Amino acid sequence: MMSANDLRESVIFAIGEKLESDYFKGTVWLNMLTPSGTACPIGNVTFEPGCRNNWHKHAGGQILLVTGGRGYYQEWGKPARELRPGDVVSIPADVKHWHGAAKDSWFVHLAIEVDPEKGPPTWLEPVSDEEYNKLR
Amino acid sequence: MMSANDLRESVIFAIGEKLESDYFKGTVWLNMLTPSGTACPIGNVTFEPGCRNNWHKHAGGQILLVTGGRGYYQEWGKPARELRPGDVVSIPADVKHWHGAAKDSWFVHLAIEVDPEKGPPTWLEPVSDEEYNKLR
Repeated sequence: MMSANDLRESVIFAIGEKLESDYFKGTVWLNMLTPSGTACPIGNVTFEPGCRNNWHKHAGGQILLVTGGRGYYQEWGKPARELRPGDVVSIPADVKHWHGAAKDSWFVHLAIEVDPEKGPPTWLEPVSDEEYNKLR
Repeated sequence: MMSANDLRESVIFAIGEKLESDYFKGTVWLNMLTPSGTACPIGNVTFEPGCRNNWHKHAGGQILLVTGGRGYYQEWGKPARELRPGDVVSIPADVKHWHGAAKDSWFVHLAIEVDPEKGPPTWLEPVSDEEYNKLR
């Protein structure tokens, strides 16, 4: 299992603060890298092993740039895509999806909000354990 | 001196193609990570040691996220700021500045264009050798 210590080797941006959110299972940290009110808000998001967010969608879309660890991105009705450092995910507006860590690895990505003026994310149901546990 | 080989350890995103530009001194590579037409274009920019761009400004601003090596960011009339992995630079609209590698180190940053619909960068004069050579 990849440990927090292994991850430290690959961490670039500061981890920030624990994010208290009902829409994540497990512990997640957020460090906003841009000043509030910017046209392109960028956050550094760190998931502990097994942590993932609920299904959700963005009115303006989102871009993920993976910088550490191993995780997944899945769109509703499609197979999950495994993510590693250097991978880029361009999430279209209004597409239902989730992202998060693999069971045995920390996972870090930058998240860039596209057209944030279109509004906040719409949070939906959790990813079921049955579904998540199918992933390696 | 930090070699290309050392850098390889810290590279996350693919280096992309050599950028042919009259506005850079030295060799630079660009990998656009987002599809064209996006509201938040993101490029991965890699400078060889000693490479830097001309003074320039952005009508909409730009954000730099440093992911590898060592380099500098300088605003007109201010001292240069040394940059290392994890550093973030929020460049305001219309502020004259340059960025690039240290003399003895490769340098890699993500560059996010803010409000790209406001138009392309305005390119100005090169950073003089006299000015650049003062930097360590």
